Amino acid sequence: MIKAGILGGSGYGGSELLRILLFHPQVEVALVTANEHAGKRVDSVHPNLAKLTNLKFESMPDPGALEDLDCVFLALPHGQAMEIAPSLPRTVKAIDLSGDFRLNDAAKFKQFYGREHPAMEAQREFVYGLTEVNRNQIKEATRIANPGCFATALELGLFPLLASGLVKGKIIADMKTGSSGSGAKAAANTHHPKRANSFYAYKVFEHQHQPEVEQLLSSVSPQWSQCSLVFQVHSIPVVRGIFASIYVTPAKPMTHDEVGNLFREFYSNEFFIRLVEGSPDINWVKNTNFVDIGWAASDDTVIVFVALDNLVKGAAGQAVQNMNLMFGIEERTGLVLPGSNP
Amino acid sequence: MIKAGILGGSGYGGSELLRILLFHPQVEVALVTANEHAGKRVDSVHPNLAKLTNLKFESMPDPGALEDLDCVFLALPHGQAMEIAPSLPRTVKAIDLSGDFRLNDAAKFKQFYGREHPAMEAQREFVYGLTEVNRNQIKEATRIANPGCFATALELGLFPLLASGLVKGKIIADMKTGSSGSGAKAAANTHHPKRANSFYAYKVFEHQHQPEVEQLLSSVSPQWSQCSLVFQVHSIPVVRGIFASIYVTPAKPMTHDEVGNLFREFYSNEFFIRLVEGSPDINWVKNTNFVDIGWAASDDTVIVFVALDNLVKGAAGQAVQNMNLMFGIEERTGLVLPGSNP
Amino acid sequence: MIKAGILGGSGYGGSELLRILLFHPQVEVALVTANEHAGKRVDSVHPNLAKLTNLKFESMPDPGALEDLDCVFLALPHGQAMEIAPSLPRTVKAIDLSGDFRLNDAAKFKQFYGREHPAMEAQREFVYGLTEVNRNQIKEATRIANPGCFATALELGLFPLLASGLVKGKIIADMKTGSSGSGAKAAANTHHPKRANSFYAYKVFEHQHQPEVEQLLSSVSPQWSQCSLVFQVHSIPVVRGIFASIYVTPAKPMTHDEVGNLFREFYSNEFFIRLVEGSPDINWVKNTNFVDIGWAASDDTVIVFVALDNLVKGAAGQAVQNMNLMFGIEERTGLVLPGSNP
Amino acid sequence: MIKAGILGGSGYGGSELLRILLFHPQVEVALVTANEHAGKRVDSVHPNLAKLTNLKFESMPDPGALEDLDCVFLALPHGQAMEIAPSLPRTVKAIDLSGDFRLNDAAKFKQFYGREHPAMEAQREFVYGLTEVNRNQIKEATRIANPGCFATALELGLFPLLASGLVKGKIIADMKTGSSGSGAKAAANTHHPKRANSFYAYKVFEHQHQPEVEQLLSSVSPQWSQCSLVFQVHSIPVVRGIFASIYVTPAKPMTHDEVGNLFREFYSNEFFIRLVEGSPDINWVKNTNFVDIGWAASDDTVIVFVALDNLVKGAAGQAVQNMNLMFGIEERTGLVLPGSNP
Repeated sequence: MIKAGILGGSGYGGSELLRILLFHPQVEVALVTANEHAGKRVDSVHPNLAKLTNLKFESMPDPGALEDLDCVFLALPHGQAMEIAPSLPRTVKAIDLSGDFRLNDAAKFKQFYGREHPAMEAQREFVYGLTEVNRNQIKEATRIANPGCFATALELGLFPLLASGLVKGKIIADMKTGSSGSGAKAAANTHHPKRANSFYAYKVFEHQHQPEVEQLLSSVSPQWSQCSLVFQVHSIPVVRGIFASIYVTPAKPMTHDEVGNLFREFYSNEFFIRLVEGSPDINWVKNTNFVDIGWAASDDTVIVFVALDNLVKGAAGQAVQNMNLMFGIEERTGLVLPGSNP
Repeated sequence: MIKAGILGGSGYGGSELLRILLFHPQVEVALVTANEHAGKRVDSVHPNLAKLTNLKFESMPDPGALEDLDCVFLALPHGQAMEIAPSLPRTVKAIDLSGDFRLNDAAKFKQFYGREHPAMEAQREFVYGLTEVNRNQIKEATRIANPGCFATALELGLFPLLASGLVKGKIIADMKTGSSGSGAKAAANTHHPKRANSFYAYKVFEHQHQPEVEQLLSSVSPQWSQCSLVFQVHSIPVVRGIFASIYVTPAKPMTHDEVGNLFREFYSNEFFIRLVEGSPDINWVKNTNFVDIGWAASDDTVIVFVALDNLVKGAAGQAVQNMNLMFGIEERTGLVLPGSNP
Repeated sequence: MIKAGILGGSGYGGSELLRILLFHPQVEVALVTANEHAGKRVDSVHPNLAKLTNLKFESMPDPGALEDLDCVFLALPHGQAMEIAPSLPRTVKAIDLSGDFRLNDAAKFKQFYGREHPAMEAQREFVYGLTEVNRNQIKEATRIANPGCFATALELGLFPLLASGLVKGKIIADMKTGSSGSGAKAAANTHHPKRANSFYAYKVFEHQHQPEVEQLLSSVSPQWSQCSLVFQVHSIPVVRGIFASIYVTPAKPMTHDEVGNLFREFYSNEFFIRLVEGSPDINWVKNTNFVDIGWAASDDTVIVFVALDNLVKGAAGQAVQNMNLMFGIEERTGLVLPGSNP
Repeated sequence: MIKAGILGGSGYGGSELLRILLFHPQVEVALVTANEHAGKRVDSVHPNLAKLTNLKFESMPDPGALEDLDCVFLALPHGQAMEIAPSLPRTVKAIDLSGDFRLNDAAKFKQFYGREHPAMEAQREFVYGLTEVNRNQIKEATRIANPGCFATALELGLFPLLASGLVKGKIIADMKTGSSGSGAKAAANTHHPKRANSFYAYKVFEHQHQPEVEQLLSSVSPQWSQCSLVFQVHSIPVVRGIFASIYVTPAKPMTHDEVGNLFREFYSNEFFIRLVEGSPDINWVKNTNFVDIGWAASDDTVIVFVALDNLVKGAAGQAVQNMNLMFGIEERTGLVLPGSNP
């Protein structure tokens, strides 16, 4: 059994880690922290877990004292993991769900996160945990920077085309997310009376997931220097789901079938990627680790549509998928979560 | 022209007063206050009003210095009106949308609002502004305590039966409200990810609207001493709307038609009350000052269903309806707001 | 392995049976029918199941030819099971999710379902499948009439009080349901533009679940003749969830704690019943087989609040719970479905 | 008074025309047709209008017999207006809300609408009713083809840039719409259980509004031949609202302020266009005739965001705006519909 700890268990990342790990046949959840709820039962904060766990939240321990654990998930607000991670015992594998360790370029980090990175040395040990692309490195890693939710959608949608050198020019990524992407704390932009009938864009030209996408894609694409990325996010009034509409100019004209064949070639052995005719729908991936991808091609444009659940494949699910790889377990263990209709 | 002021214009009560008063043909909005937004344009807080007003928020003035106004609406958080109202010039008519002046029993106030009332002397000048029931007193009033949203629904649903002495025993009022009833400030219970798929009860046996309903109904009912009221509220994941299901034991058996005739007798001249066959639906009253009422009768039970918009007939709309009466204007002026389909 | 068949697999009952049974460790789904989709892959109708099954829909076979199966679930439109069930082989256990076999009184059936029952002889073999109440009979049964969604909520909310003889007089059951209760076929009352902002009552005094509730409760209550039931349903604009607010007059005054102790006495060993302080919320039971129950007591009223997922404990989940009992399997097998936050 | 008729008054276009025209100070609604509801009160189909009209639906009359009317609105399903319009008396002004007369190219019509156009001769009398662009022609017109909802958003978002020759290359229009865009008839894609948690793309590369946009834009742009348009629509689970994210490559680099100045130059006198800092939000235009436009610029990309209500500025509101022009009335008459917060 893998003894796992969740640092930051009261947010939605932690909530979803618990939903998955409590039922993972090879994991024992040995620690869940939440300073403001220390001493309280986990199901007092996550009533969905009543009858399913007797765990209680604990205060954040000294990170250096966690050597009893085999694996630690950091599901903390952005900025906290980079304070803690360098002190974790080297024997403990760590998966960070925040953006703290995704960027290997300190200048980019400062530009997009607004502060100096205090632990770039530690950052170099982190492997970017986009499972389907970096599987082999993840297997060997002890530190994982789990990708952002938007980034996962965009990277998986573009990987086959870019890795094949089939894209040129400007890529337009029009992304949409549900409200759970804003986290578990109430805020003006998630106030129900305001949000329920809204749709709007935000973080124009400045979303912090853009540089991690560029970093990943440039590493897999032979022609990235000929591409550029416009990355724009919007809010949908649903709770869960990322939907990406990605507009690409193909380096040479491609038919619908050619695009489909390319995606099948890259992804036909990927259990969590489902290639769909027509458009995917966030409705069919909610609560699951699946990524549904559709596509279309005209003379000079290929559109790729990607749908995933921002809290599962976009966060906790992919984190567990990476943990499975790191511990040599079958990758889908604990993650075959069926969605529902309706 | 009536020179009107809105004290507390940044919340939903103030927002709806503005939506109505800015288009009222006999009103000039001369003042809108919001301390935290003082100096800002009103449409920076209420973007729906862009192009419709150039007003700016002002700080709360000395209430005694408002003698230039003809009418003041107090749309302040509960507890503030009772500090301010006693200082308002006697020449200025005042309509309070909060619960501060609804109860004429200091002990009840303390029980349900959790504090001593500092201005019970001033309270005696307030008329309870349930327009359809207290119209004549409202015409003569200079101070109005505007009814609560739940209370308006329940009182209008019960008035014909109770005033006719046709009810005995326990009345069950199962009430439901949309999220805008919680106000414009973000809070845990209106966090979109939590609220969007929820339905739950709250304030069991302790809602502060219960005593105002009992006070009003006891004043109109010859047999109130033989009745009791169970008042239970719930949250619906919509933005606007109150729906009340009221279960009554008739003093003598009544048919569906007899109940209908009774409601028609009481309300056929009431423009804002619409009697419907079957159930009303909050969908058809949203954004309007209408109250839709349906009913059904079996051998020993009469059910009355009431739907209204908590922010219009349940707050700002009824306040303006009362203002119209106080100033001798046709009652529906500025309030013929059509709902929409869909 | 139990060889199971699902007759009527394209609706929401069938969809949820598949979501559960495909992962049930002791079940093999050997047959799924849907005449209008015969020959098509199941995941073409339920895209949530893509990658999770290769099953195809079949046409409805001759019921008499199903002797290869161990268990059949009938998830058909109301009125079809009563045509088919009498022809099923006696060796095949059958669980009907419709209302066809719930009532043992032919006259009541005709009154509420609007037609003569063609198979009252067969009906006598059916056990009413309210697991927590009828567990012992279910274990011995070969035919189960699975309870209605509203009925399950109401019966479980009232059982402890009624079985203890603690209720007198009129019981008011104010029930609310999400839109999936209307089934998978598009209809005017589930048209999104109409439904999204609505709340309304329907089937006043005539809901077909009322007689099954009265039948069950009269069988467990020593004082049912002194009680009567008002059963009123409403529509909430969410997809999943039943919420029942049940208002009861206690035969003698009860405190909050006394009510709580009673519920704990009856339900503390029931895995799928969770007793909650305050109100339950449909948000915490969605997608699960849990029933969350809260309560409150005043001098002369006890309110019981019940929340469950209409498609799981209110349909497919309870059906599988009953199957487990019928086959001597641990009752919760395949049903420990965690809900999610959010 | 303008005697107006609405042909097809039971759908959402008709519903919104009624909501506006019944309160238009210079219009008398003299006729509303709906064959399947002939003889029924209008408020039996549109309960929002109870107490606001006593009109009844009539059967579709012989179009040639409508000479008593001054103006006819055709709010019919696509394909019916082109059968009727040629028979309308020449003295009656007509505004068609469908797509029947928008395209002046018979081949394009066939390609996108799937049938031969039977009345291209009549089509030549129609002016495309994009008010802000074609105002002068509309004033002189007797026949108006009212723009599509997506087309209105896209055309108004692009007009200043294209008319100024500031765009080159591919334009990506990522469009999103609420469910009311699918009309008042229940259908699988608007079934509430399916739609409430969904977001998906549809009509990939084939939406019928694309050619009308290309037709309009090519007529105003000096450099249209250097541009191309990718037009992609998606479904949002809200009732009302169009949101367009339009990605453009500027012919020469433009700053944020330069784009803003351009939009101000074109639109500062347009009452119904509101230029906003940051992103617009469909929440602030719902139920109104306003179009909210925001923008952003980077080195090589300009993004324009447009929000409008698909049933008002995208249909009935713009139709009335055009009627006002055609009859020499102040353009905003009857259309100063305030939105609401929330």
